[in-house]
Amino acid sequence: MGTTQLDTVPEPKYWHLKTVLSEALDQDFAVGEVLPNERELAARFGVARATLRQALEQLELEGRLQRRRGVGTTVAPPRVGVAVGSAQHSWPGEAADGWEPVDAVETLPTAAVLRLLGAGAAGSAGSAGASGASGVFAEDQPVHTVRRTRVTNGQAVAAELLYVPAASVPGLPAIEAPSGPARARAVLRELQRLTLDGQDRSVELGSARADEAKELDRLPGAPVLLVTTRYFTAAGTAAVSVATYRADTCRLTFGDSGGVEITHEPRVAS
Amino acid sequence: MGTTQLDTVPEPKYWHLKTVLSEALDQDFAVGEVLPNERELAARFGVARATLRQALEQLELEGRLQRRRGVGTTVAPPRVGVAVGSAQHSWPGEAADGWEPVDAVETLPTAAVLRLLGAGAAGSAGSAGASGASGVFAEDQPVHTVRRTRVTNGQAVAAELLYVPAASVPGLPAIEAPSGPARARAVLRELQRLTLDGQDRSVELGSARADEAKELDRLPGAPVLLVTTRYFTAAGTAAVSVATYRADTCRLTFGDSGGVEITHEPRVAS
Repeated sequence: MGTTQLDTVPEPKYWHLKTVLSEALDQDFAVGEVLPNERELAARFGVARATLRQALEQLELEGRLQRRRGVGTTVAPPRVGVAVGSAQHSWPGEAADGWEPVDAVETLPTAAVLRLLGAGAAGSAGSAGASGASGVFAEDQPVHTVRRTRVTNGQAVAAELLYVPAASVPGLPAIEAPSGPARARAVLRELQRLTLDGQDRSVELGSARADEAKELDRLPGAPVLLVTTRYFTAAGTAAVSVATYRADTCRLTFGDSGGVEITHEPRVAS
Repeated sequence: MGTTQLDTVPEPKYWHLKTVLSEALDQDFAVGEVLPNERELAARFGVARATLRQALEQLELEGRLQRRRGVGTTVAPPRVGVAVGSAQHSWPGEAADGWEPVDAVETLPTAAVLRLLGAGAAGSAGSAGASGASGVFAEDQPVHTVRRTRVTNGQAVAAELLYVPAASVPGLPAIEAPSGPARARAVLRELQRLTLDGQDRSVELGSARADEAKELDRLPGAPVLLVTTRYFTAAGTAAVSVATYRADTCRLTFGDSGGVEITHEPRVAS
């Protein structure tokens, strides 16, 4: 692991230490075990504490270590495979998709939400099914923001904000439930009445906002995988979901059957 | 951006600074512009240099800043959408998939490669099409490792190692080309003779190995998005690809048509 066959590549000191530490983790430590403190580790491996810290950060990035306040640095369990994509398209909340509705509120959209919904001048890049992507949505119309949480093995692994223009769910009764999970479910139910024409999805690296960090039991700024999904009807973009997955514990899987979970495998060295 | 409505969440100093800096980038700086040095920035915003550095790291994680040796910190261009998935399955190298073959070598597999190919005791989680996933492969058989590079807009955005058991490509002539791009193309061509039954894919956060880092013009340990794709025939896992995408510049897109690129949108605040 972490070795290279290209001898010409300069290897920073922390990188070499990371490789050594990684092997030590494999051989001498069990999952959940607390590592010795930084001073002790630096002495044991004969490196400066700054170098040690860089190596520990690398191992955290790779999901090998977890650092928690008040606990210290522990050996992380294998990443959890979390199914994200499937060949069959479906609306959020359809079937058992692993998400728990938390809340829904109706507000005027921010500029960023407007752009996501394709209402801006740049419009939507669109997908095969998204002819006239800005057809559904007008800028001065309110948007429902549905919050959902995804729990796997008793741990919150992802937080989602789903933006649904009010125009997408015209039949939604205003009074039934003003907020809370019941409201969130009502919005999802109305959305599911529409005919889903297509969807597209993107994944990128991001950092957790303070509210997401709290929900995911991380510090603000922790690395997350941002999954943005756009749902299209014939009229255009009917909803956009921005889901934030813990990058330390999650491995996103995109399988044929949608539910396939790939078991954790250590990183392969060339 | 970066604000929260939950007043009870403690906001670290660097996080607040990050928000302020992010707004400054929007208003006062152009893409590619070099930021003032750390001492100057720390003075301008009245913070300690350690706090400033944490905030800069956050913005780098979010793809807003790039730090390059000898250049300094510059304002990053929007992330590039790179199409990864499509509804239609295809072998690597089929059609114009954006990848350039670099090399192919034949070696005995490492333990990690064996696990990826599903030859280990744990076997393969399998997909809809992967009955008897370990059928193709025996442990003492050599594996072709094909290296490919993906270039978008003149920049190397990803490096790939594709593992193809020799048993998957029995017709491959040993002498035609011993290595190099010609050899890589020959392996891909032989692979494409097989009937592709299905594939699955996973995405997780990782850090660049030294050889990958060099190819991607990054420092070893830079954050990358690891995309692992398993290709199945009726006989089992015929090939596994591990692709390493630059996390700072790439946004992976999974569209209906496979070629859809989602244009960059700033992160949405709740």
